[in-house]
Amino acid sequence: MKKNILLIFILLLISCKSDDNHNKSKNLILNDNLQKLQSPNKNLDLSFHLDLNGRPIYSLNFENKAVVLESGLGFIIKDNVEWMKIDTLDMMNNFKILDIKFDTKDEVWRPVWGEESEIRNNYNEMLVELEQSDSERRLNIRFRLFDDSFGFRYEFPQQKNLGSFIVIDEKTEFAMNGDHTAFWIPGDYDTQEYNYITSKLSEIKKKSIEFKEENVSMFRFSDWGVQTSLMMKSVDGLYINIHEAALIEYSAMHLEFNPKSMTFESHLTPDAFGNMAYMNAPHNTPWRTVIVGNSASDILASRITYNLNEPSKIEDTSWIKPTKYMGVWWEMITGQSTWWYTDDLSSVRINETNYDSLTPNNTHAANNTKVMRYIDFASEHGFDALLVEGWNIGWEDWFNKKKDYVFDFQTPYPDFDIEKLNKYAEKKGISLMMHHETSGAIRNYERHIDDAYSLMNKYGYKSVKSGYVGRIIPAGERHYGQYMVDHYIYAIDKAADYKIMVNAHEAVRPTGVARTYPNHIGNESARGAEFRGSKLNHTTILPFTRLIGGPMDYTPGIFEMDPRKNRPDFTPNLNETLAPGSVTTTLANQLGLYVVIYSPLQMAADLPKNYMRFPDAFQFIKDVALDWDESVYLEAEPGEFITIARKQKGSNNWFVGNSNGYNKRDAIVNFEFLDSNKTYTAKIYRDKEDSDYATNPQSYEIEEIEVTSDSKIKITTVPAGGFAISIFPN
Amino acid sequence: MKKNILLIFILLLISCKSDDNHNKSKNLILNDNLQKLQSPNKNLDLSFHLDLNGRPIYSLNFENKAVVLESGLGFIIKDNVEWMKIDTLDMMNNFKILDIKFDTKDEVWRPVWGEESEIRNNYNEMLVELEQSDSERRLNIRFRLFDDSFGFRYEFPQQKNLGSFIVIDEKTEFAMNGDHTAFWIPGDYDTQEYNYITSKLSEIKKKSIEFKEENVSMFRFSDWGVQTSLMMKSVDGLYINIHEAALIEYSAMHLEFNPKSMTFESHLTPDAFGNMAYMNAPHNTPWRTVIVGNSASDILASRITYNLNEPSKIEDTSWIKPTKYMGVWWEMITGQSTWWYTDDLSSVRINETNYDSLTPNNTHAANNTKVMRYIDFASEHGFDALLVEGWNIGWEDWFNKKKDYVFDFQTPYPDFDIEKLNKYAEKKGISLMMHHETSGAIRNYERHIDDAYSLMNKYGYKSVKSGYVGRIIPAGERHYGQYMVDHYIYAIDKAADYKIMVNAHEAVRPTGVARTYPNHIGNESARGAEFRGSKLNHTTILPFTRLIGGPMDYTPGIFEMDPRKNRPDFTPNLNETLAPGSVTTTLANQLGLYVVIYSPLQMAADLPKNYMRFPDAFQFIKDVALDWDESVYLEAEPGEFITIARKQKGSNNWFVGNSNGYNKRDAIVNFEFLDSNKTYTAKIYRDKEDSDYATNPQSYEIEEIEVTSDSKIKITTVPAGGFAISIFPN
Repeated sequence: MKKNILLIFILLLISCKSDDNHNKSKNLILNDNLQKLQSPNKNLDLSFHLDLNGRPIYSLNFENKAVVLESGLGFIIKDNVEWMKIDTLDMMNNFKILDIKFDTKDEVWRPVWGEESEIRNNYNEMLVELEQSDSERRLNIRFRLFDDSFGFRYEFPQQKNLGSFIVIDEKTEFAMNGDHTAFWIPGDYDTQEYNYITSKLSEIKKKSIEFKEENVSMFRFSDWGVQTSLMMKSVDGLYINIHEAALIEYSAMHLEFNPKSMTFESHLTPDAFGNMAYMNAPHNTPWRTVIVGNSASDILASRITYNLNEPSKIEDTSWIKPTKYMGVWWEMITGQSTWWYTDDLSSVRINETNYDSLTPNNTHAANNTKVMRYIDFASEHGFDALLVEGWNIGWEDWFNKKKDYVFDFQTPYPDFDIEKLNKYAEKKGISLMMHHETSGAIRNYERHIDDAYSLMNKYGYKSVKSGYVGRIIPAGERHYGQYMVDHYIYAIDKAADYKIMVNAHEAVRPTGVARTYPNHIGNESARGAEFRGSKLNHTTILPFTRLIGGPMDYTPGIFEMDPRKNRPDFTPNLNETLAPGSVTTTLANQLGLYVVIYSPLQMAADLPKNYMRFPDAFQFIKDVALDWDESVYLEAEPGEFITIARKQKGSNNWFVGNSNGYNKRDAIVNFEFLDSNKTYTAKIYRDKEDSDYATNPQSYEIEEIEVTSDSKIKITTVPAGGFAISIFPN
Repeated sequence: MKKNILLIFILLLISCKSDDNHNKSKNLILNDNLQKLQSPNKNLDLSFHLDLNGRPIYSLNFENKAVVLESGLGFIIKDNVEWMKIDTLDMMNNFKILDIKFDTKDEVWRPVWGEESEIRNNYNEMLVELEQSDSERRLNIRFRLFDDSFGFRYEFPQQKNLGSFIVIDEKTEFAMNGDHTAFWIPGDYDTQEYNYITSKLSEIKKKSIEFKEENVSMFRFSDWGVQTSLMMKSVDGLYINIHEAALIEYSAMHLEFNPKSMTFESHLTPDAFGNMAYMNAPHNTPWRTVIVGNSASDILASRITYNLNEPSKIEDTSWIKPTKYMGVWWEMITGQSTWWYTDDLSSVRINETNYDSLTPNNTHAANNTKVMRYIDFASEHGFDALLVEGWNIGWEDWFNKKKDYVFDFQTPYPDFDIEKLNKYAEKKGISLMMHHETSGAIRNYERHIDDAYSLMNKYGYKSVKSGYVGRIIPAGERHYGQYMVDHYIYAIDKAADYKIMVNAHEAVRPTGVARTYPNHIGNESARGAEFRGSKLNHTTILPFTRLIGGPMDYTPGIFEMDPRKNRPDFTPNLNETLAPGSVTTTLANQLGLYVVIYSPLQMAADLPKNYMRFPDAFQFIKDVALDWDESVYLEAEPGEFITIARKQKGSNNWFVGNSNGYNKRDAIVNFEFLDSNKTYTAKIYRDKEDSDYATNPQSYEIEEIEVTSDSKIKITTVPAGGFAISIFPN
């Protein structure tokens, strides 16, 4: 069979028209090992061959334009025993093809929640089975071509000459066809919470050196390093996105740009010894993905990340519900209240410190009176849940201290009556949302996780916001290393046993794993609303980067952009730098984010008192849906603007959101996505003429008009402005 | 009050006779801060003062001989936040004395098991409360003087200026009074399983460089480094032992010898960043201990290590029982059988590999038929328990591969019927002993530990042998670092919840923690019988070193010293090096070890067929007790010989054991420990004239005589020989 396949492809090759990119071949192609694969609609072409060194080489074209030029694949590994004393082994060269297998799939599956209720999974597949001539070690590479994207993974089959081994380096390349414009954040083992940089590929190093943002845990490994998902606009007008899918039992992949070869090289996240991953055959790596299209919207519409993940492991998903929530949180972020209960002590010891004997600081937010007030407000306005942070003992010295036993996730502060508050919330139709800040002490969290989840079950908590602030314990492990990747999955998998939904902050960027664990309803893993302001175009980039892997708990809905004004004693001081929680958008932009930043978990992050100042704008947050039948990407340009329309799941309501970048702009909303035989009432929440994110962000207007599928309207957005539209059928 | 105490001690000082050691003072003593403390019988004298730099200095005398010359105390620390960017802080100098408090105690407590049924805890205590003049950081040092020993620990009280912090270096010194003879093993973060070296202190480096022993996990940090407990014989005839007690939430202490100052300096076990310990006040370090006496037996008789540990945390200890056991184990150690079930695969994946589809290798020892044969034998000969290793899936590639999910501690191999075998054992009066080899994958073990212990409860296992072979996962952690110390306690503490006894191999050396957790009935933590032979005097040193901290599962009772002879196909080959499980003692020595090496958990480690060859010698193993009312250290000289008599708990039976070193020797047994009004039958198991550990180890004779408290007999022991005596009242 192998021989026949080879023959077919030799014939195919001969009939192939020559294209420009082949002129850039680094190596002579041996005709008898060139393999080709096309996507179902033939838009995407993959070529694969072994070069003269026996190294696997691939390249990718889209409509005959080069997306990835000839790029190498493979690994440097070590045998696992006595690994400190021995040399590395090459698993990159000297391969021969043992067999090639083809497959194709066209199916539709229904996610538990998502941007659309049905997802098509349609690809052509090529599995290349390789063996090294000298060592007889075997490596398979599985390629899948979708109409809008490309993915491949390495598979180490069960074999005699490779059992347990160490990945010293993954040598995956993505050779670029020009000096594209990229939207990127620096490669970092411990944080993703950066503003995005827009630059030419060749400028990455320079911009990286200039980029001074700091975080409590960070490790930037190279001035040429960037994180995925990496968004690019190519020199010949293509939109290209590189990411990974199904990051499980492996370390997260970064990219390091080589300016000489104009090639991105994979850079995994190491452990304390610099080892990248520990593997044992049979086992696979995550998928490496490239999405490509002629318009930016094509990137947003791709479903490759979910399609390359395994179906849900959870059989009964009836308990997994999109959730709109408020929180006892923003007042701590903005410095008006504290997570901790007392200022008496510089350090506490869980199960030893007697809190009842200490003086309350009177700024502890998670107290019975206040929580009940929040419950009342959330209930009155139709929310599902209320997050309460700072409910449990230990916050006095929790922060980034490499303190192992930092929390027990069990013991409430003396002024937080866990039973009473949960009963009160239940009576009001609100579910309290649990908070598990680990402070990076992973062993401690895993030791307590069963008891912590049990406590949630006991009191009726349905979801948990988990946090991984600060440096990881054990020492030398990184937020995005294999050890931590494995932990995040462990916490989510175990939560499913308790029917608990998880929203993990500071965890590794998502890679579509929520398909397999749909209780994983949220992640932060990027710069959210809580910072001292972000670049004006931040939210026009997030959907092209961070959101490619899954939903983000961005915590939008900030109506008071200057958090100092929340304080009763506020007096303006123009010399003061931006306070934590400062927001650099208009209020209308904040509303648009509920549609622009897809998440089944959406927060109204601001204080109740600020919502009461703008009840008409608050109405949009109350109205907007969380789960969708259909999403239409109306207009989008990374870094500039984005407008998305979404149809509420099981309803004829639509919601439109827009976020605008640095420049004032007229957005055009074409309502052709509506049913042609219906009329609708559209309520438009928009910037006013005098809106200004810095000086007058709360200037907005609300307009109600009738629309049909023939309607087309122009909405002017100011810099960092935006709009939101609710559309209800008449 | 402070002033008065100072005054008293100034007067005391003036009345003190000057002694030679003070002439060696490195620093001028400020009279008004010199503090003195004596042991209850006044044998031991402690001096304490602050030197001109404000550094705490102590010295220790025994009967006016210097044991520890003036030695410094203190720490180098770092504030815990932003610790990578900041300088270290001195917690060693600039102290002033805030207060001095004295206390005394004389009590008797009853251990759950032990070398004696009542332990006296009698000490004088001095608590020195210090504060740094500049930083206002506070440090207390608590000294306790017993009649045979000395201990102190550092205490960090709750305070404003010190919360969470990092110990960068502990600066504890033990300045020696001469070039003593020491019995030591190299300082190592990951193994203790070395032969002991006997040398002058000044020769440590030279001998260390010459010492080539290897282990699967090892990290020797310095050629001047040694481990504790460190045994010494001083130039002026004292026996001195340095160790630590109550090693909890801290890293294990090694000693590094400085040949210029003739001083041992503490060297803790670091983590991946080189940090020694993470602390948060209020908290204490372990105790640092010095035992001293005029005879070697005084070292063996000291109970300071247990006395400095906290009383039992376990209230109901009725389920903790000394245990005599056999094992399906020695046949794997000696290469006749395998822990693993199949040779089909070079690697397996727990919960993915289908063992039922694989070919059994027919060398897997833990199979139903064989285990039942062992149960029958153990039952017939009155044992309590049978260890079965290799019962659970995963052994095919378990060894030192940094494989995280290496075992699940749940799933038996297809040929091990866990339910049937436990029922069969129960019917025969035998309890199966569980085996949890972690392969160093700590997170994996902790994730499964509750289920693993639950499984034990379900099937009636009462005790577990746990193992920590190979390098630790997570990367960069060490067997004796704080992370692992915390794990060992966690595993023992949790086992108590399940009424499970723990015998941990490759764990950190014990420090008397079994007083607090009496279910911790055993440790290996030294070179046991399983090696390819040991030095001839190995077991004459162990009681002075490793056993100072607690019992050892040495696995004695090997009757066939050449394990190759166990194989049916054995043909002698004189060129062959020693096989694993080779034993370099006589058979009579092996019997003596049941008394010499104290443990409430004793194994008859050899194969049943070898016991059947020597049933009369086997009788001693069957007779010997495991728990004692009293222990009498008859004769002892580290490295040369040791003879111990012990009275069985709640009985008038006595057992005597002897182990001999390199030289043929006549041991004198004086029976004056017996009741003076009784006669006894003593059965003596001894070397014969022609016994030779290498060529004729199985030559022994058994003699039965009548003895009284007036009896005194001479027993000749050959090199690496020994004897055992059972003494039953008539």
